[in-house]
Amino acid sequence: MTVPFPPDDAMALATAPASEIAAAVAAGTVSARDVVEATLARITALDPVVNAFTDVTAERARATADRIDAARAEGAPLGPLAGVPFAVKNLFDVAGLPTRAGSKINRDLPPAARDATLIEKLEAAGAVLVGALNMGEYAYDFTGENVHDGSSRNPHDLSRMTGGSSGGSGAAVAAGLVPIALGSDTNGSIRVPSSLCGIFGLKPTYGRLSRGGSFPFVTALDHLGPMARSAADLALSYDAMQGEDQRDPGQTHRPYEPVSEQMGSGIEGLDIAIAGGWFRSRTMPEALAAVDKVAKALGVTQVVDVPDAARARAAAYIITAAEGASLHARRLAARPEDFDPAVRDRLLAGLAIPAAWVDAAQRFRRHFRGEMLKLLARHDVLLAPATPCRAPRLGQKTFVLDGEELAVRPNLGLFTQPISFIGLPVVAVPVHVEVGDQPELPIAVQVIAAPWREDVALRVAAVLEREGIAAAVVAN
Amino acid sequence: MTVPFPPDDAMALATAPASEIAAAVAAGTVSARDVVEATLARITALDPVVNAFTDVTAERARATADRIDAARAEGAPLGPLAGVPFAVKNLFDVAGLPTRAGSKINRDLPPAARDATLIEKLEAAGAVLVGALNMGEYAYDFTGENVHDGSSRNPHDLSRMTGGSSGGSGAAVAAGLVPIALGSDTNGSIRVPSSLCGIFGLKPTYGRLSRGGSFPFVTALDHLGPMARSAADLALSYDAMQGEDQRDPGQTHRPYEPVSEQMGSGIEGLDIAIAGGWFRSRTMPEALAAVDKVAKALGVTQVVDVPDAARARAAAYIITAAEGASLHARRLAARPEDFDPAVRDRLLAGLAIPAAWVDAAQRFRRHFRGEMLKLLARHDVLLAPATPCRAPRLGQKTFVLDGEELAVRPNLGLFTQPISFIGLPVVAVPVHVEVGDQPELPIAVQVIAAPWREDVALRVAAVLEREGIAAAVVAN
Repeated sequence: MTVPFPPDDAMALATAPASEIAAAVAAGTVSARDVVEATLARITALDPVVNAFTDVTAERARATADRIDAARAEGAPLGPLAGVPFAVKNLFDVAGLPTRAGSKINRDLPPAARDATLIEKLEAAGAVLVGALNMGEYAYDFTGENVHDGSSRNPHDLSRMTGGSSGGSGAAVAAGLVPIALGSDTNGSIRVPSSLCGIFGLKPTYGRLSRGGSFPFVTALDHLGPMARSAADLALSYDAMQGEDQRDPGQTHRPYEPVSEQMGSGIEGLDIAIAGGWFRSRTMPEALAAVDKVAKALGVTQVVDVPDAARARAAAYIITAAEGASLHARRLAARPEDFDPAVRDRLLAGLAIPAAWVDAAQRFRRHFRGEMLKLLARHDVLLAPATPCRAPRLGQKTFVLDGEELAVRPNLGLFTQPISFIGLPVVAVPVHVEVGDQPELPIAVQVIAAPWREDVALRVAAVLEREGIAAAVVAN
Repeated sequence: MTVPFPPDDAMALATAPASEIAAAVAAGTVSARDVVEATLARITALDPVVNAFTDVTAERARATADRIDAARAEGAPLGPLAGVPFAVKNLFDVAGLPTRAGSKINRDLPPAARDATLIEKLEAAGAVLVGALNMGEYAYDFTGENVHDGSSRNPHDLSRMTGGSSGGSGAAVAAGLVPIALGSDTNGSIRVPSSLCGIFGLKPTYGRLSRGGSFPFVTALDHLGPMARSAADLALSYDAMQGEDQRDPGQTHRPYEPVSEQMGSGIEGLDIAIAGGWFRSRTMPEALAAVDKVAKALGVTQVVDVPDAARARAAAYIITAAEGASLHARRLAARPEDFDPAVRDRLLAGLAIPAAWVDAAQRFRRHFRGEMLKLLARHDVLLAPATPCRAPRLGQKTFVLDGEELAVRPNLGLFTQPISFIGLPVVAVPVHVEVGDQPELPIAVQVIAAPWREDVALRVAAVLEREGIAAAVVAN
């Protein structure tokens, strides 16, 4: 494998793909320490602008890198992510840090005693944690704005939102600060910032990856997953994070099903369809253009109706608002003034949601899941917009979709909520189209597969990337 | 075995214990048909007064009895309940009848196509279904009053309540119409009428007996179980009803653990304690006297505190009101005028209970269960009142407990709710004490054991019965 960067080019080092960094470290072309120093330098230079990091674990990263270099010097085998820097949304436990989850209140928690399971798994594969990332308060957010830590900024246009709630994760990857960041996705919090920041994001099947050592939001809907600048890097990190873990009682025990080796195997024989109905309404033209560009590249023309998607979104909202409010009820009573007012308002409203509504939403969820599984028995993949629009401006409160003025904050998740609601795996693939305002900004398409078929969605993403349809550009 | 009644004594036949009926039928002393005819005759004579039955399945019962007699004539083996008449609360499916569950609305349902699982199991053991029994509407009741079918009446004093919601079951057994009746118990609906009607009742461990083919109330709290005039008959029917059933997804798969053979084995070595705190407050003197009489007979003096029982009762109420309301939400919207106003009011109030309250109640439930299991690791049995008082008058709205005027309807379950809330097995044992008003009326004591230890509670009940402390008297 050719190493595409000289070891003394800090910029190239810091912005290289994970796969290339690991290959270079394994080959001895660069040391893990060199990669970490280049990464830390880039964070120091750029993070004051994008505000992606809330904690940089520089000393820990250097120590980790030195251990990898020492292991290599001794001829010990290195993991598939040897020397690859990564960072995590700050709802992941990082030993020694309070797990703030975007809040002010959680900063008073004792420091975590142990890393989150997915951090342990990535580091076991040789990756190097370099810090914790900004996020919307308690993950109840689609914007990436945060009143406590300041908003993360979209690297492609610093006046615009990253999307959220994994906004720091989106910004860090899009700005080339790290090749891989972990996020969480309850209603779209990986896919929305992937779309607005123009990177790849994987929301795995519900129950696939352990949530051990992470701060929850809505247990029945919470997913963790990677964000990266290529489908291959998603697959590499996803493979490293699979596996059973007693720390997450909601995890489903699944066999290890690695995808990295299949990323070049193409998509021949897959039945792919465009999701219609709800997923083609209330959008700006760029969202449809992005889906159509992907569909055209894949030779797809069929549009299938997804019945009841609007109800699915409403039901997801009811469950989220009620369970989120219940989770935070004591904090709301004890420290209301320490919440972001926009989050507090939603949580207080959530406290009033009747249990009978939640029951009805859960009943509908089972029905909707059944209907969607039937649809996914006929089609391997559905294509849908990840967001209805490109990145709104920071502070922007409303946008106009199909002639209707709607609140930005909840409606960025219009198209992600019905999918995570029933736990389907999705890869968000970033696309550039010349339609609509700000055509220089990216937008993503959701590649949706049947439960446990992350491999299918990732293979489609890899084909789109290989053909130049999907691409993540480092913003400089 | 001596058969204590001549075959032509219809009264003796109808009011005999199940064990004696089965022995007589097996021995050929009486035919199953004779027992059924005597039972039907007694129902015809007395049920217009006690109003226990809503359906008498006379032709079915005769046909079943004739099959048993034919089997005996052929020398085929008979089951342990051969020829024993029984009846079921009308929330059990009976093939050919709509499962009314005490309501007006359900009478418009199509007739059940199949019997409830527990009916099938009892009939497989040779028992003979003779009808369906009156109950409080949709089981949301502790009084046994019913505006659609008329209230069931306490056989010991026809101006008084049976208790509910299994009021017809209590009345039918106490009046000597059947030796065994099935009831359901969500918050106390077997134990309250057992107390007020002076019979034995078993609420098994949550998940022990199948609820297949029964109309639900609160899935997480619903139990089915037998009511009878002796501990031995409880054990006999309980043994016949054990076993796995695919029709109840909430059932726990347990080995067959028959108790009948152990009923004479005594209680040596058991650690028995009186439940204190909540369970000795807000009572009338007769409730404490009943517990103390039982405790004295067992040589028990220790009183153990049951912390948080008041909160447990409140949490049980929140879960019940919210889940019950959710279950009936569509009926409330479509046919509000067809509900009992007293039930409708509670259900409408339940529709407004916030999901966050239910979550908090469920969290507390897990905590309380853990604490109670610790207590039951130290003590094999706890003794507590089944009701705070003897049977109130029909129509009575309030009573005074410890100087406080309280509503009868919800507060008859003061002492049963905290126990069923966490699924513990309980036998209600009827006691007569000379304390308080109406000393001629019975009242019951709860014999509470650890999960899956129905055997322990039943053995204690058998000892109390053998020693003349607990007794069910047929009211004539």
